Order: sequence, then C-alpha cells, then structure tokens
Amino acid sequence: MHAYRSHTCADLTAANVGETVRLSGWVNRVRDHGGILFIDLRDHYGITQVLCDPDSAAFADVEKVRSEWCIRIDGEVKARDPELVNAKLPTGEVEVFIRGIEVLGASKELPLMVFGDQEYPEETRLKYRYLDLRREAMQDNMKLRSDVVASMRRRMWDSGFREYQTPIITASSPEGARDFLVPSRLHPGKFYALPQAPQQFKQLIMVSGYDKYFQIAPCFRDEDPRADRSPTDFYQLDLEMSFVEQQDVFDTIQPVITGIFEEFGKGRKVDQTWEQISYRDAALWYGSDKPDLRNPIKMQVVSDHFAGSGFAIFAKLLEQEGTEVRAIPAPTGGSRKFCDRMNVFAQKEGLPGMGYIFWREKTADAVAQELGITVKEAQAKLKSGEVEGGMEAAGPLAKNIGPERTEAIRLQLGLGLGDAAFFLGGKPKAFEGVAGKARNVIGEELGLTDKNRFAFAWIVDFPIYEQDEETGKIDFEHNPFSMPQGGMEALQGDPLKVLGFQYDLACNGYELVSGAIRNHRPEIMFKAFEIAGYGEDEVNKRFGGMVNAFQYGAPPHGGCAAGIDRIVMLLADASNIREVIMFPMNQRAEDLMMAAPSEPLNEQLRELHLRTIPVES
Amino acid sequence: MHAYRSHTCADLTAANVGETVRLSGWVNRVRDHGGILFIDLRDHYGITQVLCDPDSAAFADVEKVRSEWCIRIDGEVKARDPELVNAKLPTGEVEVFIRGIEVLGASKELPLMVFGDQEYPEETRLKYRYLDLRREAMQDNMKLRSDVVASMRRRMWDSGFREYQTPIITASSPEGARDFLVPSRLHPGKFYALPQAPQQFKQLIMVSGYDKYFQIAPCFRDEDPRADRSPTDFYQLDLEMSFVEQQDVFDTIQPVITGIFEEFGKGRKVDQTWEQISYRDAALWYGSDKPDLRNPIKMQVVSDHFAGSGFAIFAKLLEQEGTEVRAIPAPTGGSRKFCDRMNVFAQKEGLPGMGYIFWREKTADAVAQELGITVKEAQAKLKSGEVEGGMEAAGPLAKNIGPERTEAIRLQLGLGLGDAAFFLGGKPKAFEGVAGKARNVIGEELGLTDKNRFAFAWIVDFPIYEQDEETGKIDFEHNPFSMPQGGMEALQGDPLKVLGFQYDLACNGYELVSGAIRNHRPEIMFKAFEIAGYGEDEVNKRFGGMVNAFQYGAPPHGGCAAGIDRIVMLLADASNIREVIMFPMNQRAEDLMMAAPSEPLNEQLRELHLRTIPVES
Repeated sequence: MHAYRSHTCADLTAANVGETVRLSGWVNRVRDHGGILFIDLRDHYGITQVLCDPDSAAFADVEKVRSEWCIRIDGEVKARDPELVNAKLPTGEVEVFIRGIEVLGASKELPLMVFGDQEYPEETRLKYRYLDLRREAMQDNMKLRSDVVASMRRRMWDSGFREYQTPIITASSPEGARDFLVPSRLHPGKFYALPQAPQQFKQLIMVSGYDKYFQIAPCFRDEDPRADRSPTDFYQLDLEMSFVEQQDVFDTIQPVITGIFEEFGKGRKVDQTWEQISYRDAALWYGSDKPDLRNPIKMQVVSDHFAGSGFAIFAKLLEQEGTEVRAIPAPTGGSRKFCDRMNVFAQKEGLPGMGYIFWREKTADAVAQELGITVKEAQAKLKSGEVEGGMEAAGPLAKNIGPERTEAIRLQLGLGLGDAAFFLGGKPKAFEGVAGKARNVIGEELGLTDKNRFAFAWIVDFPIYEQDEETGKIDFEHNPFSMPQGGMEALQGDPLKVLGFQYDLACNGYELVSGAIRNHRPEIMFKAFEIAGYGEDEVNKRFGGMVNAFQYGAPPHGGCAAGIDRIVMLLADASNIREVIMFPMNQRAEDLMMAAPSEPLNEQLRELHLRTIPVES
Repeated sequence: MHAYRSHTCADLTAANVGETVRLSGWVNRVRDHGGILFIDLRDHYGITQVLCDPDSAAFADVEKVRSEWCIRIDGEVKARDPELVNAKLPTGEVEVFIRGIEVLGASKELPLMVFGDQEYPEETRLKYRYLDLRREAMQDNMKLRSDVVASMRRRMWDSGFREYQTPIITASSPEGARDFLVPSRLHPGKFYALPQAPQQFKQLIMVSGYDKYFQIAPCFRDEDPRADRSPTDFYQLDLEMSFVEQQDVFDTIQPVITGIFEEFGKGRKVDQTWEQISYRDAALWYGSDKPDLRNPIKMQVVSDHFAGSGFAIFAKLLEQEGTEVRAIPAPTGGSRKFCDRMNVFAQKEGLPGMGYIFWREKTADAVAQELGITVKEAQAKLKSGEVEGGMEAAGPLAKNIGPERTEAIRLQLGLGLGDAAFFLGGKPKAFEGVAGKARNVIGEELGLTDKNRFAFAWIVDFPIYEQDEETGKIDFEHNPFSMPQGGMEALQGDPLKVLGFQYDLACNGYELVSGAIRNHRPEIMFKAFEIAGYGEDEVNKRFGGMVNAFQYGAPPHGGCAAGIDRIVMLLADASNIREVIMFPMNQRAEDLMMAAPSEPLNEQLRELHLRTIPVES
C-alpha cells in the first residue's frame, strides 16, 4: 500500500465498502459521540468521516489529535446506516473505522479556525495565510483563479496565439505610474526597473514579426495604498496582434471573455452582444467610462426645459457657456423620502444638492388648491370618486418650472406614476462623476440593477489629449502609444478634437480590458508627442527601444490587456482583491508572513553601492 | 476586404488561382529579373512570391521598396509554370501579380540582414533584437519555446496539477545565490527581494492543503557573468506534491519530460526507462553528478591491480588512506596518438597526466624482443605467418606492471584489440572532475556518444552534509530543506553518512531537474540545521515563514523543478541560452536595446531614501 494514501478524502463510496483503505488529511473537526470519536478528515479534494471506538487499538492515539493536525489513518470502509447517509458529501454513504493512525504533522494551538465561518481580522489572516488558505472559501477562490487562467490560456492558444515571456528585470517603462527599481550590482549607481506592463516589449514582438502574442503577464507598480488594489503587482491577460484594426481586436477578445464568464459565472447571464459606446456618450448617459450596464438608467440632457424657466438656479446657469442640465430618470423612485435621501447623497458628494421631480397620486392638498376648496372637502370628493385623482408632479422643481415644462420632461424621460427624476446642472465635467455615482446608487436602491448578469460594452473613441483646466497645457488623456483616428492629418487640427483608436471594456462598473491600435509610424508618433510638449530627444530617451524599432519596417498592430485579478474577483463575487490572490501584500505593502520588506544586510548594501538615508522624524 | 490581409503568406495554393487577394508582410528579398520585380513577401507564417511588371500601375511604388519594409499588396493569384513550382514552399505553386501596394512601415538601412545566414556579433544582434528575431532560426526557437511551455502546462493539468502564482516582490529567500533587492518606498530603509525560486512559497502551498502545485516560475539570481547562463533570471517548471515519497515524484515528472522530448525532439531517441544512480556511483562511474549517458563509458576502480605493482607512483599512492586508482575504458581508442592527446588533455586540466594502456596488433619490435631475434627477422616471420601476431598491450604503464596485471585489467574492463584504458589515481575528490571531463572527451572523440539520443537518469541519495576540507566545518551539501533518509535517528550518527531524499535528473550531461522530499518536521529541521551550525534563532530568522507554518499540521511533501531554458536549449540544439530567450540580457547583464540598467532620476532616489555611493576608481 502507498505510504500515505490509497484514496483521497473525496473518493470513497458505497462501492468501497469492505475495503481496507489508507487516507491522509487534516482533522477538520473531532466529535465525541458517546465515547466514539468521529473525525471529519479533510484533504484538498473532500471530506471523509472516519471514526474510532474505544475498543480499537488506535483509540489512545486518536484521542490525542486536534483540529488541523495532519494525520494518516488505515481503516475499514463501512456503509452508514441509511438514516445517517449525508447526501451533501460525495463520501456521505460511508465511514471508515480507524485501525491505525500516524500523526504526520501536529499543530500548535490555532490562531484561526479553518472549520466554520468565523471572521478574523485581515492581519491575522495574512500572517497565518497557510491556515486561512485551508478554508473552503479560499480553496474555492484559488482553484477558481487557477482554472480561469488555465482557460484563458487554452482559449488564446485555440485562437492562434502563442505565449511569449517578456523580461521582468528591465528598463523603466513610463506608463504613468511609479516604477519599482532594482539596483544593479554589476553597474553601480544604475538601476533596472520592474515592468509596469509589457507594453513596449509586446510592441517590439510585433515589430519582430510574431503576429499574435499573448502573455499572462505580471505588472509591477509602486502604488500608494488603496483599499482595492494590490500595492505591488497585478496580472494581465496581455495580447497584441499585427495587421489588425480595432474591430479585429474586439472579435478576438470577446469570445475569450464571454467564454470565461460563461464557464465560471455559475449560470449568471452573460451579454453576447457588446454595444460600442463612445467615451462622450458614456459620460453623458452613465457619468462614467466604465458604466454598470446592468443598471438600465440612462441619463439625458434636459437643458431646453430649464432654459428661461422659473427655476432661476438652472436658468441662470444655462446662460453660461458649456453648461448643461442633465436628468437621471429613476423609475419606481417616486417618493419624497427616496428623493430626499438622494439629495443628501449628492450633498455628501460635494454638490449643493440634486433637484428632483417625482410623480405621485394626486393628493387632497393639490385638489383643494386646484379647485379652491378645503382639504377636507377635497378628501371627500376624492374618496367618493367625484374628482379623479390621477398623477401629479411633486417636488420644488416642478413648482418652479410649472406643469408644462414638467410634463415635457416627463415625456422626454418616459416616466410615469411612481417614478422620479433627478437633475444636475453646470459644466458636465464638474458633475458627471457624481451623476454617475448617483445613477449607481439609484439603480441599487431601487433594485433596478440586475445582479444576475455580466453586462459588457466597449467604450470607444477616447480623446487622445486633454487640457489642464488651470494651466491650459495639453497632455495625453490616456495612452501616448495609440494611433490617432485620421492619422497625421488629424494632428494638424484642434488637438482636443482628436480621438484615438483606443478602447476599454466595461463590465458591471469595472474596466476589465483596455487597449488600442498603436501608433506604429514614427513620424506620427513624434508629432503626437510634440503636441503634448515632448521633443524628439525626450521621446527617444523615454521610449528609445520602441521608437528605434519603428524605423525598421513596423507593421500596423494593436491589442489589449484584461485585468485578471478583477475578472476573478467578479466571478468569485469577492469585494477585495486579496480574496483572490494566494499570498497578497497587506495595504501597507507588507508581507507579514514572510516579513517583507526587511532591512538589508550591510554587506548587501555595500555590494550595491547604496546607502539608505534615515527619515527625519 | 480586410484592411491588411485576406490571407497570410502561407495560405495560397493552386486552389486560389484566379482570386484577388490582399497580403501583408515584410520584404524578405527583392530580385529584378529582366525588368520584372520579384518579392519574397514574408510574414510569421510563411513566404509568398509576389511580382510586379513594369506595365503595372503599382510598379513605380514597388520599385521603391527595400528589404524588411513592411508592405501590403493587392494582387491576382496565378499558377506558376510547372518548371517554376517551388516544392519547398507551401505556396510554391502560385505567385501573386501586384495590382496595388501600400507601404505600412519603411525601413532605414539594416544593421543586420534578416534574409540569409550571415553571422553578426552578439552585441549587434541584441541591440537590434527586433531584426534578429525576424530571422528564421530565431522564429523557430521562440515558437519552440512557447510550444514547449504550453505543452508542459497541458501535461501538468492533465496530471491533476493546478498552477498557482507565487509572489515576485517578496522577502529574501536564501537559496545560496545572491538576491536582487527592491527598495521599498513606503518603508524607507527596507527592501524586498525577487525570489531565487518559489521554494518556500510552494512548501507553504502544501501546508495550505493544495495537494498538487505547479508553476512556470521566473527565478531571479544576481549571478556573476558566465557564458552560459542568464545573469538575471531563468524559468523553471516548478512542482510540489503532498503525501508523496520520492518515487511518486519520479512517476509524475517522468512522463512529462519524456512526453516533451518526444513531442519536440525531432525524432531523436528518448530513453523510456530511467536508471536511478546513487550520487556515489555517479561520481565513480561518470565523474559527475550530471553524467552524459549517451556516452557508454563507465569508469571502474582498479586499485587492486596497481597495489604493490611495479608502477611505483600508483603503488605508493595506494598506501595512503582514501586513495584509489580508477580506469576510464576507451573502446576503439587504441592508438598511441590518441592516448597521448588524452594525456595532454589531463595535463591541461591540472593533473600530472593520465597513464594509459592500449591494445594493438603485436609489432615486429615486440616479437623480436620476445624471441630474441632481429626486428627484420621478426617482420619476416610475422609476414609468413610462422609467428602469430595477436594482441599486445602497449604504453609505459603496461611495461611497469607486467603482462599479468595488464591482462587482468583488460579482462576486468572488457576491452580488446584496438581499445585503450586511462588511469587516474589519488583521492577521488581530487581527480573525479577531470576524470568526468576526460570521459566526455573520449566519448566525443571516439564517436561513442550517441548524438541522436536523449539519455536520462535519476541521480539519488545525495549526502545531506559535506565537510570543508580545510576548516573541517560541516555544512549543507545541497539543499537544507530535504528530508534526511532515516529521519531524526539518522541525524544522531555521523553527519557525513546521512543521505537525503534528494535527487537530480541528468540528461545528456546537464542537470535538467532537481528536487527533494522535504523535511516537514520542525524538530528534524532544527536538528538538521543545528548540525550545520545554525541555531534556532538563525533558522527562524532566515526561514521563519516556512518554519512557523510547519508547526500547524504540515503534510509530508516533495517536488522538483525543471530548467526550462535548458530543456529548450537541448531541444533546439542551441549552445547558448540567449538563442532561446526572446529579450535576453548580454553577459554584462545589460539590455542594449532598452538601455537597462540606467541612472535613476534624483526624484526616484529621494522617494526611496537612497543615495548611491560613487565607486572609487
């Protein structure tokens, strides 16, 4: 017999009854039922109930074991009594009578229970990650992550891509974030950098003629602490293709993503048709370039209804150039309580407030006022049916702009009895973000957001440049390597009007994929950088490797990168990235289990020709 | 039609004749045949011949293109004349008449030709890697590497393993080599390290209950320059399993390795039965713990034949304790010229020389001496057949020890006419290395080494400890994490006799895989370290993460790691690791294309609280 096991803890069924077996695993829990010891023995694959009665020669040893001891047992498989069969366990038809036991690894007292759902502070979980990782939810998450990545690879291979590894110890690649540096011992005073992304290398692979590249690529960014991202590194499904246009990239990645979400989405609906929404429309409709399209709410411009209206705040506002009033329709949100809550939300987000109108059954108050009778009389007439109730628009805004404009707004937004609408005005940039957040909250609170769906859309036509409001300086909005739509010609006109072949994939409010058709023409690239204020020398210095390569017959190419941690998070329904990473750093970028970072040996610093500078206190 | 191509450059056959097609690719070469321009258009997939005659409207533009320009052409597929069909090209039945052309990317003058076999200095190749990588041999090597890694993954998945990623930014893991350090910005004065191997993490994954782990893992070591290794990083197929013994690991990895070599070995023979050779026997038989078993030569101990013999050097030597004389049999090496050459080889390797005996047809000289006649008479008698020639042992050694001992050696080594044997004496440690090298050279020079074979053997039973000859200090020979054979009990006796469950896989003279059953018992681990002079504090400090984990129910586990760069090198028949890495560093650990390492910005150093110390000149 094998030294440790004849079967895993998920293997035994009624078919094994009567066999002598050997199992190894961890003591999930021990119970004492009238002197008989029941152990749930757990391994990576499952749980088998093993038991020992006081007559067994092994009893004295079995009595010693505690939760999370690693043991090997020999025993006899017996059928459980029919009423004791556990249908939830694949091994629930049988139990194993222990004849011998060996303790493979005892355990000290546990700082964290593996069995059960008790919650522990994150620091405890990370310090004792090897115990935390034994818990069922973590085993599931890690298996899921591994299976998702494996499936991605299979799908990419099947699409004709090869995986090529790019360097991890390399040169600084200014992607906008901060590099991790690695001092060179052989070249004192010089440093390598860990790649923020394999951007330049994948483009070089295209220039090298490899046609279709992908990589499950580690990306390193020295980020400031933020709850929901790794402070050190993350993984991307990175791909690049030659001789393609934007739609070719979409047609390549879409089946991979839908395939993954169908395979691992546990039956949640996966959008098959992905709308393409311009960056501009996304801002207008959803107040975000990563809209959550499970939420059906689409904002609209309603400036006309407020221009010259009795609502002086908006009317005056609209006289200024570049201002707009936008409405967030809120179907089923027609109560003052809800509307007031949303107004408070907007105030918390730093806006003066959020005007609203809601449509309700006509009140006695309104009837009294309309007919010039008392409220009591109105109540009686409404009750008797002498006066029809019907719908009325409520809220201060409605009063200010009057019934006609109010009705026109209602008709434009397609709302009715029991619905509401919220209004934000000003320069769109100033309120779009809050509008987007309000849209999310409204969708959530009103139950409009379909939790059982993965909703995808491509956000396209990103502007290449943006202007700093204060300095007026033009800079790249996103990624300096994208091909401007219209090429060189487009760069001769107003830079703020230049759109790029640049795209993001939005899913349930997250940016899941980001990519572009690249600018592979050196002359267009230099021009694009010139507009943003970078001279040829600067470009050569920063991106020399790639720009040089482009002078030797570069093919048109493009690609994208999909965030793996985020995809797994969505599939696992986890709200924290550390739930889907095996050994994550904490938010202070420390590994408490391995004690990283730590102080170097003097010898190491000497070899690197480095001195650390004490921080002034 | 697609913007860039209707077909790849490998697609078109006679079936496409008459079609209008669009192709994109690089100008592999241009030829002018009587005014008609022939272009071999190349992409990742193949080559198609396209041509343009002066009547074509595109001619003026086609005339401008040069080697390695990236172009798109539209044209008409025509059948080649039967006598012009190129059977070597999949597209060799057809050619495409250019009707339109677009230059997608022009090229400056080339520092390195893609077409043809011209050799370039490595610095040129690495600086213009994107051109070097376009060459057919490099395309083949990179595809091979990618396919090998993909096949490894498939095979591991099919064996029930999941791939789990371990941290790249982590703590120092003292594996014996030098760490790359990464300064922490958030924790001034502290440093992360890049992992030399995921050793501790994979063991933690076992303690976490994941049962079967693998990873295509990047490993980082700050190595001093050496011709045949990467100065920064390399890749391993890293695996670990719980509840296993040594043979289980062998049974797992062997089918993966043989499968890979059969799949990509281009028909070379792949050993199916892998011998297990003890470290001690490997040293004796092959003078190496990574023997090349394609070479049939097996060394033997022949001390008895020299003890007390007339060859005073060996006879005296053997009176000292711990000495031996070993023979390297050299079938077909029986000529003085060859034997002398090998003697010179040994001298160049720092030994006083290498004694030899060789067996040849009896010479007239020998017959004359034997019969007491003149050489002329002996020649005549040999010619007439009056005296039988037969075999004689030649070389000074044979004379010194006399015919009986010489014949006994011949019989022990199983040699005959035309063969030779070389002899080395002393303390084995002092000559084993040279003996191993001599064995290789002899095998090569005599054509005994079967070049058409991948020969595998497990080297097992490595000693856990070694003793420093000078200081007498006991230290770990190999890997401190291996389980000693015999466990705690074995550690109570002579440490130099303790063997580990530790193994290497030798293939064609390389160490391809290395692994061990781990020491998962904290008490045995502390004892093992104590013998090597490390106290409990030191162990906790160096390997705290792992040692702590072992206190919480650690399972028995073991695994191994296979060197991917080396496997691909063997399969590609490459002699330099940089031939199988896409963007390698040069031997001074520089990336000439990306200009790494480079000087940091002052701002970066400030953020890291670091100062570089100028090197004194």
